[in-house]
Amino acid sequence: MARPSRGGVDASGPGEVPGPYLLFLGDTTEPGYAKTAFGLRDWARGRCVGEYVLEGGTVSTGLPALTPAEARVRGARSMVIGVANAGGFIPAHWVDALVAALEAGLDIVSGMHSRLRNIEGLGEAADRLGRRLIDVREPPAAIPVASGRPRSGRRLLTVGTDCALGKKYTALALAAAFRERGLDAEFRATGQTGILIAGGGIPMDAVVSDFAAGAAEQLSPDADPAHWDVIEGQGSLFHPAYAGVSLALLHGSQPDVLVVCHQPGRAHMLGYPGYPVPAIEQTIHLALRLGGRTSPAIRCAGVSLNTSGMDESAARRLMREERHRLGCPVADPMRGGAEFEALVEACLA
Amino acid sequence: MARPSRGGVDASGPGEVPGPYLLFLGDTTEPGYAKTAFGLRDWARGRCVGEYVLEGGTVSTGLPALTPAEARVRGARSMVIGVANAGGFIPAHWVDALVAALEAGLDIVSGMHSRLRNIEGLGEAADRLGRRLIDVREPPAAIPVASGRPRSGRRLLTVGTDCALGKKYTALALAAAFRERGLDAEFRATGQTGILIAGGGIPMDAVVSDFAAGAAEQLSPDADPAHWDVIEGQGSLFHPAYAGVSLALLHGSQPDVLVVCHQPGRAHMLGYPGYPVPAIEQTIHLALRLGGRTSPAIRCAGVSLNTSGMDESAARRLMREERHRLGCPVADPMRGGAEFEALVEACLA
Repeated sequence: MARPSRGGVDASGPGEVPGPYLLFLGDTTEPGYAKTAFGLRDWARGRCVGEYVLEGGTVSTGLPALTPAEARVRGARSMVIGVANAGGFIPAHWVDALVAALEAGLDIVSGMHSRLRNIEGLGEAADRLGRRLIDVREPPAAIPVASGRPRSGRRLLTVGTDCALGKKYTALALAAAFRERGLDAEFRATGQTGILIAGGGIPMDAVVSDFAAGAAEQLSPDADPAHWDVIEGQGSLFHPAYAGVSLALLHGSQPDVLVVCHQPGRAHMLGYPGYPVPAIEQTIHLALRLGGRTSPAIRCAGVSLNTSGMDESAARRLMREERHRLGCPVADPMRGGAEFEALVEACLA
Repeated sequence: MARPSRGGVDASGPGEVPGPYLLFLGDTTEPGYAKTAFGLRDWARGRCVGEYVLEGGTVSTGLPALTPAEARVRGARSMVIGVANAGGFIPAHWVDALVAALEAGLDIVSGMHSRLRNIEGLGEAADRLGRRLIDVREPPAAIPVASGRPRSGRRLLTVGTDCALGKKYTALALAAAFRERGLDAEFRATGQTGILIAGGGIPMDAVVSDFAAGAAEQLSPDADPAHWDVIEGQGSLFHPAYAGVSLALLHGSQPDVLVVCHQPGRAHMLGYPGYPVPAIEQTIHLALRLGGRTSPAIRCAGVSLNTSGMDESAARRLMREERHRLGCPVADPMRGGAEFEALVEACLA
């Protein structure tokens, strides 16, 4: 089936995103649109020197307010567009600020749908100034077809019952916990926000389908036998639109360990009212069965619950009940505690 | 996850390939390289007005030898490159003949890896003459994300234990058999040769993975309740590189009926010696389980064996044995006979 993959608009794609970052918030007044900036503040604080808010903007990350020139002096190498508006495009009245960042010596990084080079005046300015426009939704060029060859090192993949319920945060929290235990562990990003947090990765959903498993292989290459790659899952094996992405990621990742992520109370797949969310145990069973094809010793270490909609005591009670019912550690990484410690231990067992 | 899909180089992609065709064979001397031309002769004879062989070429389809100008007079609308060389590119000494076809009023159609517009001199000639260069490996623009919505009409999908063992031929033979019974049936192509045979389709392996199931939905749209779409399968749910494509096609196709395709004697996945070919019954079971997500009443009508490497009596004996063992019709569509009649009846039951 294979054919050559198409390359990014600007050279190498998001294999590496140049940090540290200045976070651009535009003139946003709606905090819900600034998830990328907040995610970077929370998970990649060391990669962020400050924020840049335009006149009229009211949303802040609490990081130092800096102009692009000030950020450059403090070591910033790129300005990251940390907001998405409803349409996923960049409004015309932001362009002057983006050009100013290029003039200050920063590259521009975007995780938005629309391509930076398609914005009137931006490509021209970048070319003139010798700066880069980096779309992290653009996959790297020349991804090979998957080989299926076993790789050295250890791998964990987060697998979801649905989209958008905590696979990225679970992987970030587990990678951090592994490192706190003195292990050599790396978070491997497969979506745009994760790529900005990690400073690199591959946007799985944007890879041509024949190369999707190959992209997953490339994302977690051969490593030291004691090294852990903790890989951000995508979609769900039960998703009517994205299951193919999830399966390619599962096959190519060759995980030793799975952690299944679920949001209690979500009855239907997000945006798909005709499709019930599968049970956790169904998801464990199917992921192990399919994952065993490329990783024969695959196992499920436990379950990560997104209990953000529950109060503390209800959340802890549910974790206990689910642990009892499923017979494996069940935790909410955002709440930590003994439950999370048990999940981490089970991953490393 | 979704982002807009990228469009084809030349307008609309291979949604429709303009026929009838003149088959271009270059100066090929190796029949194995002319599979596309032979496939078109065997399965789309009505779309082919003749062949065009360059000096030194020894391979022929047996169709009338015509120059591009003669073919145009006989109604040809495009010249199809019916040969692939080892590297999958178009040698420089073919370019004059391709330009001659453009000058004669024919579009050029290619299923090769390399893009026609990247061939020196060809894009310029096409633009000057107002002709099209059509790469059937380029998916159509603006494929939507899959909706998972049930569609009217009936659908059959061929599913393989591996790649390259008869999924396309099985689908073509079943669609032809359905039509012979007076049914309204259409072959739906998902790979380059199938697209040339059908005169349209979507190259599934070239679709960005987030849109792969959406492409499959688009390929077999709502239809009359009695209409059959017979869809060409791709890859295998057990393939370490392509299973994601196979799952997206299975989910998006929402088939009522599966026919599992297998090549007896193939021990390992083609090109993947570390991966045994799954058993037929394993493939049936997994395809029904996964396919049931978007098509709850899915069933397997039977098995198609590629017995091209066996003699007639051994092939018939194996079909009987497998039918007995699996408890469903087992046939080689290329051999026809009572076994194939039984498979067709089971599909329509």
